[in-house]
Amino acid sequence: MELPRTVRIVEVGPRDGLQNEKQVVATDTKVALIARLRAAGLRAIEATSFVSPKWVPQMGDNAEVLTRVLAAEAERGEAVARDGAAVWYPVLTPNLKGFEAALAAGATEVAVFGAASESFSRKNINCSIAESLERFRPVTEAAQAAGVRVRGYVSCVVGCPYEGAVAPAAVAEVAQTLFEMGCYEVSLGDTIGSGNPDSIRRMLEAVLTRIPADRLAGHYHDTYGMAVANVFASLQMGVAVFDASVGGLGGCPYAAGASGNVATEDVVWLLHGLGIETGVDLDALVDTAAWISAALGREPASRVARAVLAKRRAA
Amino acid sequence: MELPRTVRIVEVGPRDGLQNEKQVVATDTKVALIARLRAAGLRAIEATSFVSPKWVPQMGDNAEVLTRVLAAEAERGEAVARDGAAVWYPVLTPNLKGFEAALAAGATEVAVFGAASESFSRKNINCSIAESLERFRPVTEAAQAAGVRVRGYVSCVVGCPYEGAVAPAAVAEVAQTLFEMGCYEVSLGDTIGSGNPDSIRRMLEAVLTRIPADRLAGHYHDTYGMAVANVFASLQMGVAVFDASVGGLGGCPYAAGASGNVATEDVVWLLHGLGIETGVDLDALVDTAAWISAALGREPASRVARAVLAKRRAA
Repeated sequence: MELPRTVRIVEVGPRDGLQNEKQVVATDTKVALIARLRAAGLRAIEATSFVSPKWVPQMGDNAEVLTRVLAAEAERGEAVARDGAAVWYPVLTPNLKGFEAALAAGATEVAVFGAASESFSRKNINCSIAESLERFRPVTEAAQAAGVRVRGYVSCVVGCPYEGAVAPAAVAEVAQTLFEMGCYEVSLGDTIGSGNPDSIRRMLEAVLTRIPADRLAGHYHDTYGMAVANVFASLQMGVAVFDASVGGLGGCPYAAGASGNVATEDVVWLLHGLGIETGVDLDALVDTAAWISAALGREPASRVARAVLAKRRAA
Repeated sequence: MELPRTVRIVEVGPRDGLQNEKQVVATDTKVALIARLRAAGLRAIEATSFVSPKWVPQMGDNAEVLTRVLAAEAERGEAVARDGAAVWYPVLTPNLKGFEAALAAGATEVAVFGAASESFSRKNINCSIAESLERFRPVTEAAQAAGVRVRGYVSCVVGCPYEGAVAPAAVAEVAQTLFEMGCYEVSLGDTIGSGNPDSIRRMLEAVLTRIPADRLAGHYHDTYGMAVANVFASLQMGVAVFDASVGGLGGCPYAAGASGNVATEDVVWLLHGLGIETGVDLDALVDTAAWISAALGREPASRVARAVLAKRRAA
């Protein structure tokens, strides 16, 4: 089939990435990272998570981050109105308490996070899949009432660290529930990176019987180096939104030293190579990957960033 | 289209990989590496290069490596005859002098190395494409007379470090000449890793008008993280032979610090995930990647090796 002509990237580095880094990054650094990502052309940047700092100390400054990011955005108001390109800063809100805090900080988009694996749901958020979905319902209802849009995540869409292979039908079921609850988009997460173009295709085939392609996003981890191929296979099935993390921030929480979220620059390189527009300036993105990686005391994890930086050094 | 059910991997780490490492690796280490790769199930292992040690000191022990590898193979003769699986140890022979030295050391398969880019040919082997092809002709004739099979390489099949984009028709032309000269297989090399699933597809479409798919191999570099996706796209076009380098040995000679040859373990992971047989034992391959990387004083470059080793440490 024809590939999509434009793709929307949802940058998840500041939340999904930094949440999984051992170091707690300074608020100023987070705000600057988000500003750099915006300047690089990203128009959807997951900013933080409204969870308890007891569980996720990395996101303890959630209200301050979101408030500052939205204030900076408001200052750009005129220019934004001129070019007509809204920028979205979704934040993770696992429950009504988190949603209310996010709303108080000015959130205009939130995200809820379900799982397609029963064991992962119990270990990760301490309740069954069904219970988690019921917990999201008041969030989606309150969000609709407040004019806040909601994105749904499904994790473990191919494999689970506790159960192994996950049935495509289980993914379709959870994705459909989130979609019917009012999520404008459902992001399908290969949380442990065990997917390949074949298992991703089978999973998408099942989900596409319930949700149209233009309401789906691929969220792939590069643990085994398959993420770029999985993005390509998803494009072939009509998916045109992908989550990615600048510099591959975050690593893999299930295997220390392994890769986690696919790097945004690797996805953008693929898409631009395929002639697909993203609105992202790759050079500025690589600069940002180098800058945040240096702040964390390491090299960028992505091949594109390393190659582009190596070529610049050689030039 | 249906993907191939089995794929042949041509392991190029001991030659293409080690040739591009700064360190000169000890002969014993090379011979042990090849033995480990064989034990991991690889049945085509490029062993060395018969070039002048003035130009490529890393391959200065070519005759000793090949002689020892073939002697070890002969010792296994009975077992090999029993399971019927011949193992091939191609060696690079850029000219008749190299071929004669390879033949004297017992070679049963050699390889010649042409380019689809005029500038690359001049800078890399100091002659035009046409001159290089004429230089290969006596090699292929002598090989046929000696019952030695010849593999052809075409480099820069998508991009050239000096010229930029390379026309698919230029690749098809060189590939066809090598094929008609008697090469049983032509390996298409994305030498600078600039290919993506679209440019690889266009290149293959051009080559497939001249050479059947079962006589082609994909030789992709992972400089920008696209190699696994490029293998997938090639499988979709019927290509069923891929070159790869254990542990991603070799790096990129055109951008220090960047990735080079795609890692064998990443390709094998993809293929096994797609249900395609390779005959390779992934765990033994990862062990080998860890072992040779340690010998070079570093971590394996491949995501699969890093993830598998991280999971083993955690277990």
